[in-house]
Amino acid sequence: MPSDDFKTYLGQKVSLIDGHLDAHLPSDLTSPSKIHEAMRYSVFAGGKRLRPILALAAAEACGGSEEAALFPACATELLHTYSLVHDDLPAMDDDDLRRGRPTSHVVFGEALAILAGDALQAEAFHFIAQTPPATSFTVADYLKEFAVCAGSLKLIGGQVLDLEGEGEDTLLSHDELIAIHERKTAALLTTSIRLGAMTADATAGQLDALTTFGYNLGLAFQVIDDVLDVTADTATLGKTAGKDEAVNKSTYPAILGLEESRQEAKRLTDLSLAALEPFGEKAAHLSQIAHYLLDREY
Amino acid sequence: MPSDDFKTYLGQKVSLIDGHLDAHLPSDLTSPSKIHEAMRYSVFAGGKRLRPILALAAAEACGGSEEAALFPACATELLHTYSLVHDDLPAMDDDDLRRGRPTSHVVFGEALAILAGDALQAEAFHFIAQTPPATSFTVADYLKEFAVCAGSLKLIGGQVLDLEGEGEDTLLSHDELIAIHERKTAALLTTSIRLGAMTADATAGQLDALTTFGYNLGLAFQVIDDVLDVTADTATLGKTAGKDEAVNKSTYPAILGLEESRQEAKRLTDLSLAALEPFGEKAAHLSQIAHYLLDREY
Repeated sequence: MPSDDFKTYLGQKVSLIDGHLDAHLPSDLTSPSKIHEAMRYSVFAGGKRLRPILALAAAEACGGSEEAALFPACATELLHTYSLVHDDLPAMDDDDLRRGRPTSHVVFGEALAILAGDALQAEAFHFIAQTPPATSFTVADYLKEFAVCAGSLKLIGGQVLDLEGEGEDTLLSHDELIAIHERKTAALLTTSIRLGAMTADATAGQLDALTTFGYNLGLAFQVIDDVLDVTADTATLGKTAGKDEAVNKSTYPAILGLEESRQEAKRLTDLSLAALEPFGEKAAHLSQIAHYLLDREY
Repeated sequence: MPSDDFKTYLGQKVSLIDGHLDAHLPSDLTSPSKIHEAMRYSVFAGGKRLRPILALAAAEACGGSEEAALFPACATELLHTYSLVHDDLPAMDDDDLRRGRPTSHVVFGEALAILAGDALQAEAFHFIAQTPPATSFTVADYLKEFAVCAGSLKLIGGQVLDLEGEGEDTLLSHDELIAIHERKTAALLTTSIRLGAMTADATAGQLDALTTFGYNLGLAFQVIDDVLDVTADTATLGKTAGKDEAVNKSTYPAILGLEESRQEAKRLTDLSLAALEPFGEKAAHLSQIAHYLLDREY
């Protein structure tokens, strides 16, 4: 269980992030109103805001300000949200439920869900454009980091490998599973962390350490996601539980077994925590987030 | 008919643009190969490269170099290509034919077509990231221009209005039609031109003039597109002709009549040409492109 202090911290960050998103996304009265309604429906669906919180905590670990990290922090959430909207489409994972609510295409229809996802990706880049340059990093640096993460080598590449894996009769190997999740999950977590650190003028050494942190945390996060799909129920999860097993999907529990998966999550979390050592007390929040993700129930 | 000199000019620009796209897109041997194959299938489908050529010609009009304008020029083509891939999807316009070839979802399936479009949008922004800063403009300036154009207020907004219009029993008004096409077509043409000009350190006055040029050219382009859908055949057009009329779509010929539409295209083209006057001979290619678009047969 997270401490009350940490819960207060998370709550404050969620408010800050939601306020920034609300202030900088077009209102749902802006024409064409339907698309802005659809964009906001998915953005304000009660997500944990993990990626933006990581960005803020990484800025803190490098001695920077939250203020400077807010735009890229929110950009990673917008990118994440768009990827969920498209992943849920009938032609992809065909999911009707997300964060306890009907998915975008169920509410707005397939065409508008595709377009809302497209517009959210563009908006994510618009947020990157509004990030203040640091002393060592320009908007061009932020943009390169973000665009590579969003593209066919990372986020989209991971989704393609995932879809290809689902088409196989046999389970994937552990290495093949890692190849999917380092692209599909770990890359965006790492980019969130790196962008937050860049706004705080992180040194090359700090960026390397935070990349190691993000990579291992990202894989741990996915292992736990897979475990929860087996052990939690739909109400707790806010999305359809047990779905992976029903479609014989290659997951960590399916490949490693449930107990071994839990140990793998612990091992990866420990690796991520070790990378934080050089930051000392400044990385307290990053460290608490890693513990929190390992112990979460949804 | 375009002069031989102008045809040679167009051919040279297409080669330059195709070479740059080929050099900077991931090869189709890059893993996951299927997504890169799908991206390249749509990018190298024999498009006219109108948007990138306009960017290069705008840089020329402002005394800049082609070299500096190449990345944003190609970025606009990647954005255009992604929008076509998504527009053609079954949930959207449901088109099987594009530039004389089966559309992406027909060849690769719907899931991969969605993802290829997504990845092409990300790649477009990656090209913006690689654009050299000018003296008066930074990558942040390019990025703001491009992200706004790609988002819910312009490109996506136009597509949403277009889809909403198709759902109406009655034809749209001329003003409603303009509201669609200034977002869906004119915005990206204008952004292509403005980005090319920005790499050439255009003055505020030059950018204003080129914005007027692009806006009117963009609307003229759409009027002619609508006219050709009525008067040309599928083989010439490379996409299904007569489709607008078959679905009772609001088009310029449907609203203004065929002859009036031709006159409207001429009137808009004249407005665009008038905006080029301050540039003198340096805008010769921009002017030739405007004449060429008015007289084109596909």
